[in-house]
Parts: sequence; C-alpha cells; structure tokens
Amino acid sequence: MDSEEKNEMIVTPWEVRGKVDYERLIQEFGTQPLTEELIERIAKYTGKLHLQLQRRLFFSHRDLDAVLDLYDKKVKFVLYTGRGPSGPVHIGHLVPWIFTKHLQEKFDTRLYFQMTDDEKFLVEDQNKLSEMTKFAYENSLDLVALGFEPENTFIIYDVQDIDLLYDVALEVAKRITYSTAKATFGFQDSTNIGWVFWPAIQAAPCFIHTKLTGENVPALIPAAIDQDPYWRVTRDIAQKLGYYKPAQIHCRFLPGLGVGGKMSASEPETSIFTMDSPEVVKRKIWNAFTGGKGTATEQRKLGADPGICTIFQYFLYLFEDDDKKVAERERKCKAGETLCGECKTDLTKRINKFLAEHQKKREKAKNVLEKYHIKR
Amino acid sequence: MDSEEKNEMIVTPWEVRGKVDYERLIQEFGTQPLTEELIERIAKYTGKLHLQLQRRLFFSHRDLDAVLDLYDKKVKFVLYTGRGPSGPVHIGHLVPWIFTKHLQEKFDTRLYFQMTDDEKFLVEDQNKLSEMTKFAYENSLDLVALGFEPENTFIIYDVQDIDLLYDVALEVAKRITYSTAKATFGFQDSTNIGWVFWPAIQAAPCFIHTKLTGENVPALIPAAIDQDPYWRVTRDIAQKLGYYKPAQIHCRFLPGLGVGGKMSASEPETSIFTMDSPEVVKRKIWNAFTGGKGTATEQRKLGADPGICTIFQYFLYLFEDDDKKVAERERKCKAGETLCGECKTDLTKRINKFLAEHQKKREKAKNVLEKYHIKR
Repeated sequence: MDSEEKNEMIVTPWEVRGKVDYERLIQEFGTQPLTEELIERIAKYTGKLHLQLQRRLFFSHRDLDAVLDLYDKKVKFVLYTGRGPSGPVHIGHLVPWIFTKHLQEKFDTRLYFQMTDDEKFLVEDQNKLSEMTKFAYENSLDLVALGFEPENTFIIYDVQDIDLLYDVALEVAKRITYSTAKATFGFQDSTNIGWVFWPAIQAAPCFIHTKLTGENVPALIPAAIDQDPYWRVTRDIAQKLGYYKPAQIHCRFLPGLGVGGKMSASEPETSIFTMDSPEVVKRKIWNAFTGGKGTATEQRKLGADPGICTIFQYFLYLFEDDDKKVAERERKCKAGETLCGECKTDLTKRINKFLAEHQKKREKAKNVLEKYHIKR
Repeated sequence: MDSEEKNEMIVTPWEVRGKVDYERLIQEFGTQPLTEELIERIAKYTGKLHLQLQRRLFFSHRDLDAVLDLYDKKVKFVLYTGRGPSGPVHIGHLVPWIFTKHLQEKFDTRLYFQMTDDEKFLVEDQNKLSEMTKFAYENSLDLVALGFEPENTFIIYDVQDIDLLYDVALEVAKRITYSTAKATFGFQDSTNIGWVFWPAIQAAPCFIHTKLTGENVPALIPAAIDQDPYWRVTRDIAQKLGYYKPAQIHCRFLPGLGVGGKMSASEPETSIFTMDSPEVVKRKIWNAFTGGKGTATEQRKLGADPGICTIFQYFLYLFEDDDKKVAERERKCKAGETLCGECKTDLTKRINKFLAEHQKKREKAKNVLEKYHIKR
C-alpha cells in the first residue's frame, strides 16, 4: 500500500479511514455548512456557545434552519442520537453525547437514544448478538453517567424494544427499494438480508415520538457525519409518511491517539475507554501521536505542529473551555516553548480527573438505568 | 396473450397461475414424493388415514421420514403453519388447517401458527398495515373455530409478537445473503428492503419452540407447496444455528370455483368465504366451473369430466369422507347419469351446513382468542 492509498478518505457508516477532508464531505454528502448566522440563532437560545460549537467540532447540518424556524414559532423538536454497542465506550463517543445534553437542557427537549445491538450483530461476522446486547446495557451506563435526566431521556435498545420500532420500520422499509439502499450504503450481493433491512430500523426513532405521544415534531440528530447516509434515505420518505424530515447537526470525528482516522474501539491502544485505569490512560497518552519533533532540542528550535496533534485536539474539543488558554497552548507549542511531555502530563491529569468522576457516576447509574427505558 | 402463455405454470410464494403440474413441481423444487411407505408410517400413529392424505391432497414432503424416525425414538416434533392475512378466510385456507389439526391430535404436538400481517403489508403497494393486522385477528377466529386446543396452539401475530421473533430472525438473516434471497425469491432492484428481509421472519417460527421451552425438536410444516422456497433457505442454515432442519408436508392448491389456479381471495366470486351467507354460497357454486357439457342432452349422452370439475374436488378433498360414495359420484358423472345441477345442489347443502356450524364456533372463538396468544 503506498502512502496515497493509505491516506485515501473513506467515510461510510461502518468505516472511517484516511485523512478526512470535511469541506469535501459537505460537498459529497450534499449537506450544508454550519454558518455564522445559524450559530447565532442557536446562541439566542443557549446563551454562551458550547465549546464544541464554538470550536466548530459541529460543522455541518441538514434542515437545522427549518427546526429553528419552527422552534421560533413554539414548535418543539426532539433530539435523537445513538450508539453501535460493539465494545466499551471511549471518550470519542462521549463528545457528541455531551453536546446533545447541552442542546437538551437549553432547548428543553426529549432525547431518544438508540442502542443498535442488532446492527452491530449483523455487520460483523464474529459479533454475537448476546454480546452486543450486553454492551448496549454497559454503554447506557456511560450515557446516564453524563447526567441526562430520565424524564426527558429515552433509551431504545433495538432488540429489547423492537416491538416499539417494528411497525414504523416496516412503513419505512416498504418505501426504500433495494436499488436505493444499494446506491446509498454500497450493499452487494454478498450483503446479508438483515443488514439490507437495517436502515429502516435506524430510521424508526426519527418518528417514534409521534407514535408514543401523538405529537408530530421534527427530530434533530446530533451525530458524526459518517451516519448521514441513513438520514438521507429517511429524509426522502419522511413526508410520504406524514412526518417532518429529520434534521441533523454533524460533528467531526474526534481522532484516536494514533495517526488520522477516528478513535476506534477496534484499536484499543489509541482509544481511552471510560473504564480505563489512571495508569492505562497515562500509558496511552504517553504513546500518543503528536505534532512534536524528533528531539527536544529540535522542537525548542523549530516549534511543533498542534494542527496534527491528537493531544491538542482533546484540549480543543473536550478539556479546555477557555479560549485564551487554548490559544496560549497553541502559541507555545508552535513557538517550541512547550514540549509534548508537558501537554501529555496536563492531559493525563485532566482525563484522569474526568474519568474518576465519570466512573463514580457510572456506578451509580446502575441503580437508575431502568428509569430510562421506555414504558409500555 | 395466447392460450399457451395463459396456461403457463407460475408457482411462487406470491403467485400461483396456470395449470399446475405437481409432478413437475416435485422435480423443480427438489422435494420428495409422499410414498406409500411413508403414508403407512403415518398411519401407524394416526390409524385411519385422513381424507386429505388418503386422496393425496398432500403429495410431497421434505424430511418427513427423518421426523418420523425421531418420533419412533420418542423425540417429538412441533407443527408450524400460517396465514398471510390480506383478506377474509375462504374454504381453501381451511383445508391444510384441518389436516394440521388431525396431525396435532394424532401425534399430540404443539402447533405454532404464524399470522404474517407484516408480509402482506410489504408485498402489496395498496395494503395498509393496520388493515392486515385487523385481518390477522379476524382470520384467527376461523382457525380457532376449527377446534384447536389453546394448550397446544400458539398463534404468532408478526407485528404484535415481533419481540419473540426478532432475535431469531436476526440470526437467520445474518446467514442469508442478498444473492441467495434474490435467486430463491426472484427479488429485483425494485423490491423493497422490508420484503428482502422478510424471509427471515417466516423462518423464525421454525425455531421458536426451542427459544420458548429450551427443547430442541424439529418443526413439521404442513403447507401448500408454493411456500417451499422459504423453508428451502431456512433448511440451509438451520444446522449452523444448532437446530433441526424444518421438515415439510406439501399440499396441492384447492382450486377456486373458476378455471385453474388456486382459490384466491382476490377473486371473490370464485372463493367461498367462511362468512358468506347461504345465498351467496348458492350463487357462487351455481356459477362454478365444472366438467359438464354444454347441454343436458349432450351430457346425458357423453358424460362429464370430474377430473377438471371444481365441484368434484370439494367432495374429494373436503366433504365426502366415504371412498365408495366418492367413486360412485365419479362414475355417475362420467356416465352422464348425474347432471351438474345435482352435484351443485348437494355441495351447496354440505357447505352451508358446514358454514352454519363454523360461523357459530367462530363467534364463540372471540371469547377465547386471547388464550392462543403466547404469554410473556
């Protein structure tokens, strides 16, 4: 594999590889950039911008303007996002969830959160359904630990809650041809028939609020942009079914600690899991890819590159709320005034402090998890 | 359309058309003929052969020998059959159900009966899901009216009971590629993705007994042979999942009252529905296709052809248990001793007597239907 092939951008719901060009994704997926004007309209309701919006981790959308138009007229929306529970949760997963919680609080909306144990079973040969379902419950603890309120937060476990999803999924599935699914998701003759159907299951929560409450409002989906194809087909059929098109607000991928791509549970040494011990976090961060030079002397002389540094991105999108401080860290890095060890030590402390708290809340979440389950 | 095209045999799970050549179906589908030896093995347990076996309405099978081998060794089986509830039940539907009840009583087995409201919604553009679900309950009344006992009879309503089916269906679906499904069912690019997945839902009840009870026994499926493709793919993957291959016993189609094909709810004037009034039954039978001649004089002289007569088939497969009487009816028909009006009058009386009883039992079934639903 030559370096060009290695860096080729691949972004699908199941694979993110190579250097991601977000401008190109907006073009190719046909989404809209998140403009200053839209961000101001959000700020009208949220006050101070959330870190992840301020720093443009969220950068693209579909119909966010339409959702805000309705909200201005007192028509609410519901939030919908989810997780493919094929392993433990890492910090990269928490990023859009934290932003989702911010939106939930500021706009006072319901959140439907889908745990797609069925998907993760269908798309990987070696995955066992019972294990995916187990991860779904485990992963829910991380969600609840972030402080979502049970009155407004509804976790949908696909297999356990299929009775809530199936009739809606059937209505969706009947209106998506194999041809459309093939073009959208790259299905092939070797794709299993469960996977072929599955996009209808991911579409169903867009409309479940109406089924449960009778109230027809749009869904706004905060998610990484690789999930966009699902909502694209869902949007095409929503109005035929009498619903609003689901709107989206897309985020970038929080990189792993290695070179490029997104943080992935399949590369454990480059991902910080929520249950990692302080020692493990320290080791992983110590081995992380940075923008540093080969030697300290060289770095002091030439400076380093925070633009490609994984450590810097964690400060930027998760752990440094203060714009001045983040700018100062960037300046010192570029000037060669800080060495990578210093940032790594700082980040290790912040992450371990965050995880110590998170792990406590996660333990407590076990007692209340049932409250987040949709009642029959 | 020339007459050859019109008579071309089409037999798929969704369409039966033209003159059906059952010998050719055995060849093309790769099933086994029901031999004298096998029928004797059944008789060992049932005593006197059921009318529909004696007259070879059931004519083909897969693995019935294996099921009987196990039964000889005290390993039971479960029965599984079903109904696509896209309209009211007609007498043609009752035929395999009556035979199934006979098997259930003689072999003392459970029956799982699947009402496929989801399928009927997915395969016809104009079908509404709520209407299919309504027909599923309506049709259940006809099943219960036949006298199935609730202790041993479990009706699965696909949409309502999807929580019981979904995990099993996922295990099946993961092991069937789109390519296999396309080859087996003739799916095309224009087929909707719900329909593509659906064979996995029809496969699930083959294995549901194990899920519900922990007891791993084979399923024996009495059904019309057009449903065979479903079980063919199910058989291919059963052993990978640790189950017995589902066995089958196939029946011919009870013809409608028109020329050729099977009785079909989509041609109401050629089907006798269980809720038809005596007057309607009389009219439909009076207009039925027979093997009679153009005039009474001609018929008295040349005789008629019971082999193509729809009326005669009703006596043969449903309403005349006595071999001697059926032979006498055949002889008199061929000899021109009886005219069609006589047979029609006889059949009208028998059907109306049967329906009067059936309609009473069907009304009573409303009070006990809940007992046939699988408890959680």
